[in-house]
Amino acid sequence: MGKIKRIRVKPSSRPKTTGSSPGSDLVPSSVLEPRITIRSYGDDIYHEREVKKYQDIDDQIAKFNTLTHWICVQGLGDLKFFEYLGNKFKIHQLIQEDIVSGGQRPKLDESSDYLFAVSRRIYINEELEMANEQLSFILLPNIVFSFQETYGKCFDPIINRLKTDKGTIRSGGSSYMLYALMDVVVDEYFELINRFGDELETIEELLYRRPKKSMMYDIQSVKRAMISIRRAVWPERDKINDLIRSESPLITRDTRTFLRDTYDHSMQIIDLVESYRDITTGLIDMNLSFISNGMNEIMKVLTIISSIFIPLTFIAGVYGMNFAYQDPATGKILNKNMPELYMANGYEYTLVAMLLIAILQIIYFWRKGWLSSK
Amino acid sequence: MGKIKRIRVKPSSRPKTTGSSPGSDLVPSSVLEPRITIRSYGDDIYHEREVKKYQDIDDQIAKFNTLTHWICVQGLGDLKFFEYLGNKFKIHQLIQEDIVSGGQRPKLDESSDYLFAVSRRIYINEELEMANEQLSFILLPNIVFSFQETYGKCFDPIINRLKTDKGTIRSGGSSYMLYALMDVVVDEYFELINRFGDELETIEELLYRRPKKSMMYDIQSVKRAMISIRRAVWPERDKINDLIRSESPLITRDTRTFLRDTYDHSMQIIDLVESYRDITTGLIDMNLSFISNGMNEIMKVLTIISSIFIPLTFIAGVYGMNFAYQDPATGKILNKNMPELYMANGYEYTLVAMLLIAILQIIYFWRKGWLSSK
Amino acid sequence: MGKIKRIRVKPSSRPKTTGSSPGSDLVPSSVLEPRITIRSYGDDIYHEREVKKYQDIDDQIAKFNTLTHWICVQGLGDLKFFEYLGNKFKIHQLIQEDIVSGGQRPKLDESSDYLFAVSRRIYINEELEMANEQLSFILLPNIVFSFQETYGKCFDPIINRLKTDKGTIRSGGSSYMLYALMDVVVDEYFELINRFGDELETIEELLYRRPKKSMMYDIQSVKRAMISIRRAVWPERDKINDLIRSESPLITRDTRTFLRDTYDHSMQIIDLVESYRDITTGLIDMNLSFISNGMNEIMKVLTIISSIFIPLTFIAGVYGMNFAYQDPATGKILNKNMPELYMANGYEYTLVAMLLIAILQIIYFWRKGWLSSK
Amino acid sequence: MGKIKRIRVKPSSRPKTTGSSPGSDLVPSSVLEPRITIRSYGDDIYHEREVKKYQDIDDQIAKFNTLTHWICVQGLGDLKFFEYLGNKFKIHQLIQEDIVSGGQRPKLDESSDYLFAVSRRIYINEELEMANEQLSFILLPNIVFSFQETYGKCFDPIINRLKTDKGTIRSGGSSYMLYALMDVVVDEYFELINRFGDELETIEELLYRRPKKSMMYDIQSVKRAMISIRRAVWPERDKINDLIRSESPLITRDTRTFLRDTYDHSMQIIDLVESYRDITTGLIDMNLSFISNGMNEIMKVLTIISSIFIPLTFIAGVYGMNFAYQDPATGKILNKNMPELYMANGYEYTLVAMLLIAILQIIYFWRKGWLSSK
Amino acid sequence: MGKIKRIRVKPSSRPKTTGSSPGSDLVPSSVLEPRITIRSYGDDIYHEREVKKYQDIDDQIAKFNTLTHWICVQGLGDLKFFEYLGNKFKIHQLIQEDIVSGGQRPKLDESSDYLFAVSRRIYINEELEMANEQLSFILLPNIVFSFQETYGKCFDPIINRLKTDKGTIRSGGSSYMLYALMDVVVDEYFELINRFGDELETIEELLYRRPKKSMMYDIQSVKRAMISIRRAVWPERDKINDLIRSESPLITRDTRTFLRDTYDHSMQIIDLVESYRDITTGLIDMNLSFISNGMNEIMKVLTIISSIFIPLTFIAGVYGMNFAYQDPATGKILNKNMPELYMANGYEYTLVAMLLIAILQIIYFWRKGWLSSK
Repeated sequence: MGKIKRIRVKPSSRPKTTGSSPGSDLVPSSVLEPRITIRSYGDDIYHEREVKKYQDIDDQIAKFNTLTHWICVQGLGDLKFFEYLGNKFKIHQLIQEDIVSGGQRPKLDESSDYLFAVSRRIYINEELEMANEQLSFILLPNIVFSFQETYGKCFDPIINRLKTDKGTIRSGGSSYMLYALMDVVVDEYFELINRFGDELETIEELLYRRPKKSMMYDIQSVKRAMISIRRAVWPERDKINDLIRSESPLITRDTRTFLRDTYDHSMQIIDLVESYRDITTGLIDMNLSFISNGMNEIMKVLTIISSIFIPLTFIAGVYGMNFAYQDPATGKILNKNMPELYMANGYEYTLVAMLLIAILQIIYFWRKGWLSSK
Repeated sequence: MGKIKRIRVKPSSRPKTTGSSPGSDLVPSSVLEPRITIRSYGDDIYHEREVKKYQDIDDQIAKFNTLTHWICVQGLGDLKFFEYLGNKFKIHQLIQEDIVSGGQRPKLDESSDYLFAVSRRIYINEELEMANEQLSFILLPNIVFSFQETYGKCFDPIINRLKTDKGTIRSGGSSYMLYALMDVVVDEYFELINRFGDELETIEELLYRRPKKSMMYDIQSVKRAMISIRRAVWPERDKINDLIRSESPLITRDTRTFLRDTYDHSMQIIDLVESYRDITTGLIDMNLSFISNGMNEIMKVLTIISSIFIPLTFIAGVYGMNFAYQDPATGKILNKNMPELYMANGYEYTLVAMLLIAILQIIYFWRKGWLSSK
Repeated sequence: MGKIKRIRVKPSSRPKTTGSSPGSDLVPSSVLEPRITIRSYGDDIYHEREVKKYQDIDDQIAKFNTLTHWICVQGLGDLKFFEYLGNKFKIHQLIQEDIVSGGQRPKLDESSDYLFAVSRRIYINEELEMANEQLSFILLPNIVFSFQETYGKCFDPIINRLKTDKGTIRSGGSSYMLYALMDVVVDEYFELINRFGDELETIEELLYRRPKKSMMYDIQSVKRAMISIRRAVWPERDKINDLIRSESPLITRDTRTFLRDTYDHSMQIIDLVESYRDITTGLIDMNLSFISNGMNEIMKVLTIISSIFIPLTFIAGVYGMNFAYQDPATGKILNKNMPELYMANGYEYTLVAMLLIAILQIIYFWRKGWLSSK
Repeated sequence: MGKIKRIRVKPSSRPKTTGSSPGSDLVPSSVLEPRITIRSYGDDIYHEREVKKYQDIDDQIAKFNTLTHWICVQGLGDLKFFEYLGNKFKIHQLIQEDIVSGGQRPKLDESSDYLFAVSRRIYINEELEMANEQLSFILLPNIVFSFQETYGKCFDPIINRLKTDKGTIRSGGSSYMLYALMDVVVDEYFELINRFGDELETIEELLYRRPKKSMMYDIQSVKRAMISIRRAVWPERDKINDLIRSESPLITRDTRTFLRDTYDHSMQIIDLVESYRDITTGLIDMNLSFISNGMNEIMKVLTIISSIFIPLTFIAGVYGMNFAYQDPATGKILNKNMPELYMANGYEYTLVAMLLIAILQIIYFWRKGWLSSK
Repeated sequence: MGKIKRIRVKPSSRPKTTGSSPGSDLVPSSVLEPRITIRSYGDDIYHEREVKKYQDIDDQIAKFNTLTHWICVQGLGDLKFFEYLGNKFKIHQLIQEDIVSGGQRPKLDESSDYLFAVSRRIYINEELEMANEQLSFILLPNIVFSFQETYGKCFDPIINRLKTDKGTIRSGGSSYMLYALMDVVVDEYFELINRFGDELETIEELLYRRPKKSMMYDIQSVKRAMISIRRAVWPERDKINDLIRSESPLITRDTRTFLRDTYDHSMQIIDLVESYRDITTGLIDMNLSFISNGMNEIMKVLTIISSIFIPLTFIAGVYGMNFAYQDPATGKILNKNMPELYMANGYEYTLVAMLLIAILQIIYFWRKGWLSSK
């Protein structure tokens, strides 16, 4: 497909674990050893620390108790961490399961002490496959937890702003950080849609010029990607709306204003996804129509060639027959059988007749419009 | 279809009995002799008892009056049991009918003394057909009734947890048991969807490589399965929502939290079903497109072969004609008729002309892109 | 279609009279002479009386003033009866028109003194056509009127229960009778859907084995039947819901419980109708796909036979040409023209060459998978 | 199409004037000189008067100030009339524009002094085209204005009832007149739908017997007509509902009851339109399927004839070859080349072989079911 | 496509910048140097001034502090202007971003001091491509800002009315000006839809007469245009509704009345867009059907010609065979081989037989209806 690398879209992103009975042991969807980083920051302060043992978190929080802390967990393979989380921060067992088991829809769970939010990150991974990762967030006063299933670097822009920028990101508190993290996910949707938009344009151009069997496959891939994104964005939008309307004191008024901006973005994405779905439907129709047109063209060639030459061949066949009446008496072959054969200029007359027939047919096909190139 | 056993999906699961007039005699949808087991349990106690006569139930309940009782009824073939149920537990006649007649949608009926809930279990039975069984539940203080049409072992995981686990399942009371039983059904949907997801992937792969007539049949089977599941899950979701919002004191606050989890699961299932429906629609489009492509390919072969050889055969036919002007006087055949035949190297010239025509046609078809393999 | 008699479904059931201006004279949709029966009953009493003159109704009601009366009107051809109805029971002119003109959607009209309800009965008549009859009901204290356009016996089960059963039907009062009459209509929908379900299964089986042109027609008939039923059931459901929520004292609390059961049934019917519609859509897709597959198969046969024999015929044609160079001097035909013809074993070589070409083509088609039976 | 005259349905009824900036000069959609008639009536009085100058209206209203007045305006070509209307009856400028510019959807505008309602009349005009006219109504105490773009006689039934009937139409006041006028429009929809229903039946019958290219065109015409009607009826229904629920004292309680009847009619029309749309969709599917079936039939004929005769022709071609080994020494043609030719009964054997091949092929095609007529 | 210039509709209008993180620097979607004009007007006063430096705006507003000011900004390439806007008029940073970044959906943001509204202008640009421009408006007491991405002249009618008209536009205040500016956008939709309506009519006419491959492309273009317009009009409608229901004192009661008119227009546009979408769907169906019909016609010609001449050619081939039994003794060729060849009038009999076969076939095809022109 020209310059664009083809993106593999699997039939659907399946839930990794079927909803296991709660109360049973946790089964993590990711077996990656967690990499935990705690970042504590204020207007002029920024401390970053790799967490080796969970006690480090407690220490950091105690040490910088006036700052905001963002604890970034990558890899969910260690269940002990969730035990610690439950004990120390009173996170409900079902919330732990939602984080660990993956496959959740974007949602907001409000509890008296904290907010739990799920986002779905959709991106193109290094093998050029569309991947689908669950991001979970817990918002506590002054603390934000973020959980990723992989070591993906999607939060790097946030980290950079946190290190260099001294604006809202530093002073906005934990709810602004939650907003900033979730906004990254929505922004990635735009990139993704743009990428598939480029692919659609390439497909369309090729489709018009030379339809191929594999194109239907490519169109369906884009359609599936749109289905996946739509499946993620609608609940994402609802979640953001829930956050805006939440009465929780954890979310500041300023953050709500910014969330409204993200809400607008999610609406734009929904618009785009629906438009692209309509366009893929159109491309499927066009594909079908072009295939049928191609068949028509093939049939026309066959029909024109056959219709012209089959009758002519018949005439040639007639004059290739060996009828030869023999005089029963003499055994001599008499002329009166197939007299045309022995006519003066019979051959020339026949050729002219054939030519006339061919010309008449060509005129017929030309008037039917079958000779025009398209 | 390779390793996956094909699953038969009948056009639709029909209601077994058409809604008979209430007040008339009950017509059970299942003729299996009931197997009734009563399980009484508390934090540290677990008693299981096969019920031989209905009096056994009364005895067990009286004996362990501080425990929670789960009365599991498999097979609905004995109407006397329902009579007993009506007399002893004051279950309304219409509720009895709903249990016995089958074919109910998932729903919740609240009455002042008890709650009645219906779930639909969808599963692959041993004959690899998709089966659809009604599960009914009655929730009373400390007592849960479960009714199955068959002797299916879908509740085995619950029984195992009840025997071995001393956690929430033992201490959660009757409403938690109701939740646990209903959660099993929702979990089974995940397995089912995964199974059909595998089938879809297999179909898609085969479709691209070699489309077959039977594939349309397979795609439709998956589509139907999705329709059946959707038909069950939407009211299931509503039922769970009704339970969460129910003001009945029979449902504890903790159970509501767990039900919210099941609600999320039912939403995920709805998402998956809708995605799979979209994918089957896509496969139907692909199938149609691939069939048309196949036809194009066939037509191309026919057209190329015919277009090349029919004109050549005509030429051969022309020179197979027997035109031979005889001198009327001498009867001698003169050369001037069909002079090409008697030209020096006339044969060679003709062969070269045929070759040229063939080459020109091949160039024409090649420029049209008809000679490329796809 | 095997054992199932084909059911004719006309494009749509049209309104018999276009909404005539109210206030103008009534135009009855049925010209049948009314047959009126009054049935008065209580816990232990049952009186049935053919009504000859309208005074009979007054007499019967006055005579058994403690009983419940069901006045069953079959045939709407006598407008004087409606005049009597208006005068005696104060039925509004527009209600009279709704009964008489037919073509109403199921609905409930509440007035201070009575309730007016419309049901649509859909059934297979004796000519195996799908028929659509309006049933109208008026509920007064202790009195139910039922109006049918035809003499159809759809209420026979109710009459039998009334004669023999001494249960709820006798003691339930007029609102229970209204419920029982309307429940009959909903139950008939189940039968109808089952019948079309059988037809769909037959069609599907035949479709897979040998698609016919007429099958599309049959599928469309089922689809139309489903459309008709759906058009009737949705407002039916709303009507029942209105009855349940109605604040009218005419409807007893017990009746409301039974109506909830009918409501559930109407929901089941809606589910079934939607499922069957999806299935017919699937069958249409399958039909189209199977027709295209059939065309592919036909084309393959043509292409294989043509591709093999047309080139061979060309070769045969070449060696049937009469090139024969005559020595201009002697007039003797020389051998050097078409030397293959005069080669030793030239014929055998040619046959072998033809065989080789045929074998190569067969291998080509076999590798393309065109020789496999499906 | 048999007896039914074909009705031309244009792609869509476009707005005649694009929404011009309010405040600018009025641009009438109709250039017809207005014909204004004022009809004043009471229980026993009826006065009809052609309006020559606008003063006539004032006179008539003043003279019969206890009566109800219906002022019927046909043709909107005189803007001075609207100036008069604005001055005398305080009709808002935007309302004037809505009347004059056409292209409005059915709607109700309530103002403190009057009600403004728009209906869309859809009808078959004399050129058998589907036409779409805006009817506007202004309801004042005792006065109803009706505005038509053309001189169409759609209100003739009302005029006749007004002249002859002394019932509700005379005594119902201005709101009943408004109802009666709007009811005419809804009744016309029934006629229209019936007409297109007949057309659908004709198309369906022809489709099954002999599908034609133009049928797709006819089906699309009906579909478009349904789209146009639907586009008019949905807001019509909302408008009637608004009228029923309006708190304006201009609408009497009795009129509301009659409007409820019209509301039911509009619901029936919506039902019918949706059904007919479903049926046209079905016809499109049938058409496609029948065309494909037709193609299959054509292909079968071609394939059978070709498959039988092409191999036979090949055999004939083989024995038409001129292989003739000459003895290099004597120049004598030897027999051993193509020995079959010189076999005793070689010709007969060949004919039998050809016959056998043909019979085998016929058996093959017969078993494939290709020889059956359908 | 005849007289209508083809309009290029790109797959979709993509967002120019993906939602960048707020708080980061603004990235303008347009790099055009702003052209700013301030127009101050009252009932009898009108001042227009090109703004060279931002101070000019302050001066003009201070100088004419009793007038209404419309500040028209074309080109968003200068970020300093937005800085000035933020400082002077306290416009929130996120609002500035919405103006600058483009790609917003129509929406209304209410703040305590001002209203911010976005419209999307869709138009055909000079290269005959469908273009999509964001218009932003800020409403302050007595001041309206309008922001355009390009120097497009869409507001020229407003400017003309402002210069010449002394009516509502002069006296209506800033909210009327906001209404007038937004109304221009909605009016442009009508023009656009009319243009595509003409295109649809042209396509339809051509489709019926001579379907072409490119037509599918044209239909899809119109469909896409409709999708784009729909995507803009639905939120446009919501925005207008929000304005009507807004409690902001900035919007006068009179303006609300006019906005209601715009609301009606947006509803009409939605109606038209939906109708046109239905029509394009119909055209796609017609296209597919006509292509298939065309194929049928081609196949008929091929089949008729082939079916008639292939058997005849076979017969000719048979009598072109060289069977010639030689008397083994004498080497003399005997007559009894292929006796027909030596029959008296054998040739004539054969020709007659061929004619009969051809006539029979023609009768067969004629009865099948394949010979009729359509």
